[in-house]
Amino acid sequence: MSGTDHSKQHEWSEDGPESRLVSILVEPQMGENIGAAARAMWNFGLRHLRIVNPRDGWPNPAAVAMASGAGGLLDEARIFPTTGEAVADLHTVFATTARPREMAKTVMTPEHAMTRARELIGQGERVGILYGRERTGLENDDVVRANAIVTVPVNPAFASLNLAQCVLLMSYEWRRQGNGTEPEVEVTGRAAPAEHGAVARMLDHLEGELDQAGFFFPDHKKASMVANLRNLFHRAPLTDQDVRTLWGVIRTLAEGPKRRR
Amino acid sequence: MSGTDHSKQHEWSEDGPESRLVSILVEPQMGENIGAAARAMWNFGLRHLRIVNPRDGWPNPAAVAMASGAGGLLDEARIFPTTGEAVADLHTVFATTARPREMAKTVMTPEHAMTRARELIGQGERVGILYGRERTGLENDDVVRANAIVTVPVNPAFASLNLAQCVLLMSYEWRRQGNGTEPEVEVTGRAAPAEHGAVARMLDHLEGELDQAGFFFPDHKKASMVANLRNLFHRAPLTDQDVRTLWGVIRTLAEGPKRRR
Repeated sequence: MSGTDHSKQHEWSEDGPESRLVSILVEPQMGENIGAAARAMWNFGLRHLRIVNPRDGWPNPAAVAMASGAGGLLDEARIFPTTGEAVADLHTVFATTARPREMAKTVMTPEHAMTRARELIGQGERVGILYGRERTGLENDDVVRANAIVTVPVNPAFASLNLAQCVLLMSYEWRRQGNGTEPEVEVTGRAAPAEHGAVARMLDHLEGELDQAGFFFPDHKKASMVANLRNLFHRAPLTDQDVRTLWGVIRTLAEGPKRRR
Repeated sequence: MSGTDHSKQHEWSEDGPESRLVSILVEPQMGENIGAAARAMWNFGLRHLRIVNPRDGWPNPAAVAMASGAGGLLDEARIFPTTGEAVADLHTVFATTARPREMAKTVMTPEHAMTRARELIGQGERVGILYGRERTGLENDDVVRANAIVTVPVNPAFASLNLAQCVLLMSYEWRRQGNGTEPEVEVTGRAAPAEHGAVARMLDHLEGELDQAGFFFPDHKKASMVANLRNLFHRAPLTDQDVRTLWGVIRTLAEGPKRRR
């Protein structure tokens, strides 16, 4: 799903709300994971990265190698010796963690946390998200500094998100709520929807009839003509009735010349 | 962010809406990516995996090694020679792709597509999501079979989602909209939430101690100082344990000077 458009400018503004959201990796171990986290952030337009006490020091060549197009975030990353120092200038801090904690703390979904972050940032706050160590996550000492816990609503029987995946989901949530992409609305009929196999059989038949009738001319255009035709019939959701109607249309058209003879 | 609870049963029901949502990997190349996609699905409670013409054949030991706890999805995965056969029994198919296509097709956000999927599944449909090859994505021949395109709203200047990340985000969207997790929950650990009366008695005591120590100065500001203080301790929900702790804090601070005497 790679689709970087190199003609597009990086959409980053030091005045935009995203400039007030900081991602903080607490004692990450592998450089690769730091690089992957930077990529996950930049995929969704987040840029401010802070790192608390990275195990292998800083800068980290493995992080740079993994970050590739998001390397700018590593150049600009700020390194802190402790979580306390990393969050000192922030107004609200969220701690991502999957484990329930033996402490009184609000637990939010990523969705709700990012709604809250947008509200607070709109009021002029700087907001941070804490991400824990790869193996052990955040320690209680980190979590107590947060204003709320964020837990991704994973399958309770299988919760295996890694660091970069957690950063990806939070960053996605941030962007999803603010990017203003409008979905296109579709209209559904009352008839039963057709199965894809039924549509495919109808299209195979149509293609055969058209081929016999010399429709695909010149030859080298046939592939694209077929693709356009198939695309046309898959654009709208077809009903069983539509498919029956189309069979009738094809049959009638195909038989036409015989009658005229 | 690993937090699998091994006491929890896999929350899977052949009657649930998730049983009618199928993830289809089209000609995946690396077994590792198939395994990672299975993990991403199962993290969010999706189980039905179909694979079109996997490059390295099937079964694939690298996929099994990567899938770990999600290996059950690979055991149950259905293999098809073509995309057409893989979607034949489905009613609606979404194609994930980052690239704009030279064809008339509805483009949806993941959010909108999964809203739509829930509606269609609620009406009894079977819905599929197509995911493309690691390097080249979906071909036009795959995309024409889909009823709509889904594009993740990534940073246009940096779109580097890999296969498993794309599966992760779509699966997250599916679950986000349907899992019914409360957006915000006050977790108080093991301690019971404090009654308001207990908080009030503690605050009365604090106020008395502070008054004795000459804290409320000048006199005419006392009322607003007390209100601010009370407000501060009511902002967050306190537990019984918190109140006991605060009693101890007040007592210790109040007794401090006496000891020094």
